[in-house]
Amino acid sequence: MEHFLSMKNLSEHEIIKLLKRADQVERTKIVSRETPLFVANLFFEPSTRTKMSFTVAERRLGMEVLDFSQESSSVQKGESLYDTAKTLEAIGASILVIRHPMENVLEQLKNGITVPLINAGDGKGEHPTQSMLDLLTIYQEFHRFNGLKVAIIGDIKHSRVARSNAYALQTLGAEVCLSAQESWQDESLPFSYVSMDEAVEMCDVVMLLRIQHERHDSIQSRNSDDYLTSYGLTIERESRMKNHAIILHPAPVNRGVEIDDSLVECERSRIFKQMRNGVAVRMAIISQLLEDRGTHVADNFNKRSAISR
Amino acid sequence: MEHFLSMKNLSEHEIIKLLKRADQVERTKIVSRETPLFVANLFFEPSTRTKMSFTVAERRLGMEVLDFSQESSSVQKGESLYDTAKTLEAIGASILVIRHPMENVLEQLKNGITVPLINAGDGKGEHPTQSMLDLLTIYQEFHRFNGLKVAIIGDIKHSRVARSNAYALQTLGAEVCLSAQESWQDESLPFSYVSMDEAVEMCDVVMLLRIQHERHDSIQSRNSDDYLTSYGLTIERESRMKNHAIILHPAPVNRGVEIDDSLVECERSRIFKQMRNGVAVRMAIISQLLEDRGTHVADNFNKRSAISR
Amino acid sequence: MEHFLSMKNLSEHEIIKLLKRADQVERTKIVSRETPLFVANLFFEPSTRTKMSFTVAERRLGMEVLDFSQESSSVQKGESLYDTAKTLEAIGASILVIRHPMENVLEQLKNGITVPLINAGDGKGEHPTQSMLDLLTIYQEFHRFNGLKVAIIGDIKHSRVARSNAYALQTLGAEVCLSAQESWQDESLPFSYVSMDEAVEMCDVVMLLRIQHERHDSIQSRNSDDYLTSYGLTIERESRMKNHAIILHPAPVNRGVEIDDSLVECERSRIFKQMRNGVAVRMAIISQLLEDRGTHVADNFNKRSAISR
Repeated sequence: MEHFLSMKNLSEHEIIKLLKRADQVERTKIVSRETPLFVANLFFEPSTRTKMSFTVAERRLGMEVLDFSQESSSVQKGESLYDTAKTLEAIGASILVIRHPMENVLEQLKNGITVPLINAGDGKGEHPTQSMLDLLTIYQEFHRFNGLKVAIIGDIKHSRVARSNAYALQTLGAEVCLSAQESWQDESLPFSYVSMDEAVEMCDVVMLLRIQHERHDSIQSRNSDDYLTSYGLTIERESRMKNHAIILHPAPVNRGVEIDDSLVECERSRIFKQMRNGVAVRMAIISQLLEDRGTHVADNFNKRSAISR
Repeated sequence: MEHFLSMKNLSEHEIIKLLKRADQVERTKIVSRETPLFVANLFFEPSTRTKMSFTVAERRLGMEVLDFSQESSSVQKGESLYDTAKTLEAIGASILVIRHPMENVLEQLKNGITVPLINAGDGKGEHPTQSMLDLLTIYQEFHRFNGLKVAIIGDIKHSRVARSNAYALQTLGAEVCLSAQESWQDESLPFSYVSMDEAVEMCDVVMLLRIQHERHDSIQSRNSDDYLTSYGLTIERESRMKNHAIILHPAPVNRGVEIDDSLVECERSRIFKQMRNGVAVRMAIISQLLEDRGTHVADNFNKRSAISR
Repeated sequence: MEHFLSMKNLSEHEIIKLLKRADQVERTKIVSRETPLFVANLFFEPSTRTKMSFTVAERRLGMEVLDFSQESSSVQKGESLYDTAKTLEAIGASILVIRHPMENVLEQLKNGITVPLINAGDGKGEHPTQSMLDLLTIYQEFHRFNGLKVAIIGDIKHSRVARSNAYALQTLGAEVCLSAQESWQDESLPFSYVSMDEAVEMCDVVMLLRIQHERHDSIQSRNSDDYLTSYGLTIERESRMKNHAIILHPAPVNRGVEIDDSLVECERSRIFKQMRNGVAVRMAIISQLLEDRGTHVADNFNKRSAISR
């Protein structure tokens, strides 16, 4: 891999290889290099989970983190993303992690920037590292994707997570179905829509999405209770899920809207496990990207991981 | 100790044990662990001193710091404190330090969060680590609390520091008196009010408070000079203090309001010593909390501190 | 050196010593101390390059970085710069790096603050570390300053970089000329003004400045194309530069305004090399300041650099 921008162009082999690496990376004891490697996190949109998760992953790999914050940067003086990225490369970043409100914005950088780029969410485009942590959570549960039934449910139209997961799950041979109120359906995705009631009964994985209020043009008049009853995961619907079926949600959860408050930490919820897995997949992606360019994040990393694989 | 939320429920023994630990912690040479421990600092109110002091304490203990800043987080997307805290726990924080504008907010977290919580200031509630550094400063000066006369002076009603110190000083056997203009008195505290002039003459410790402009409902019409003359520590009042008496202030100081500008760094002022002590008490509290759960912040920490104790 | 505040009072010997130190510092392998040294970065104005560059320099020296951000600090409660600086010193910072909108603001701190101060830009005053990286870039190119012709071009009146460079280049024996539209000329500088066309033809170093929109009182009515044609570095002007002449710009570049977009990364541009050099000069300045007070940033730093010098 040269960059990590999208789930669309990753092969089954590449995805599985990364998942296996992620699955063992947490057990690898990493002794950091004498000369530190720097990574720059450039977040042009608010984030807790993704940013902190990248930070933990990077520090656990022994890397130095350059925490770029838009509010106090030269972006205030009108500097372009390209020039900001080029600057961070010039002062020593070996890898750039970028979240940006504009779709496909990282594609523009591939020409001038020579270090690996990681897409941490580009507008309504993709969110491939979130997809990887969803996949790792499914993989740890079922140890396969082929034939697995996965429902992606909710605000599909505005969700970059839905898009990344739909591409990847198709590549991996899962059967994907979608469920959403009409105004939030996205006809460009090659999957059929089913009702919420059908979705919960037939699927192994119930993947809820967050309502992306911040990407909606107007305030939704529908109230929260209405939404939960019509399209959300109620206690009643949860009771009709298959015995072994699990619940995923990328969080932050709108409790009582997409899912009943009491189900967020229920037995079949993997919501906080997803977050834990976020650190592992990001460690795997970063170390793989650097390794593919001949750089090792830690003096002992390869040797140890070679043994444990 | 499971958490560090309030001075109210700490016993004399627990406080003294922490003060002794703090008193020697700066001299302990700490070699950090191979696998780093993470701490998350969640500050939902502005802070220089407390936040930076925690950061220094954490780094000196060899810990990795997750610096959560509200402005660029998912709190912007409406995420609750509980979900934010749970997230940071999930991605690997071994301890959470929280400052929040709402009183008692950490009590709500004790059910779902399993890692130790430290209260870094909750609204008008408490500020127990500030209290600990005040106590350490007094302890280093007088080597006792029993019978010591301490005056807490100023905006008592809006001060979480006053509350934490009043509880702790009582536990430790000090004689506490209060001094404040009528509108800033807090009748819930079981101590008597004296005039500023009485306070300065009879006390061993003159503990000034900051006027909490940001917690007042309306703008005070009184001007600064008036306040200093009526209720502040003027040069004239300072001259009537006991020979060995010391001045404390939690800072930031409103120079020329609570205290004459020239007294901030005078001989009996311990204001900057308090700040230095803030690092020591926070190192002690964090390492104690983790140790009480069987986690050691540094491979050599216990052994060395065992020797030096 | 006690502090690093201005290029005005540095001797030729001091500048050259720092440049040589910077030139070799990147090749020095630094093993950090067991007890970390803390540095506080206090930026009261937006910055990407300078702040990130200091951070990389500090981390590469093995130092712990206290990242003070105005937005979430007690400056919000009205704390003065002096008290903020004094606080950071009290909690353990061994050196303070300060950027501030007010000219000469660091001079006020020299009395009460005992640790070394570094000026990272003071209003329209100076920006001495930027000057040092410009000088290093020139030094690496020509290995001398004496007799070198340098043109400083653009918004001289509002530029702290121009001022620092003009002082230093004069000290070093370079021939400095200035070029600016009339309203941006600064008559206090003891150099003559030439036209842009003269400047590009006769100089070895074409040092462009950024238009400091944020320091202008009113919005400039002139459009960007006009500016480039009249006063900027067009492709046509670049073609008339001496063969060996180089282009410098402190960045962020207003592409297509001060310089044609396509020249930013052209062969004679050293713009991104300047950024790389920024890390080296800051490593040199910090380690020199600490060393001059008997503190070594790394256990092995001096020994190794003694050998390689």
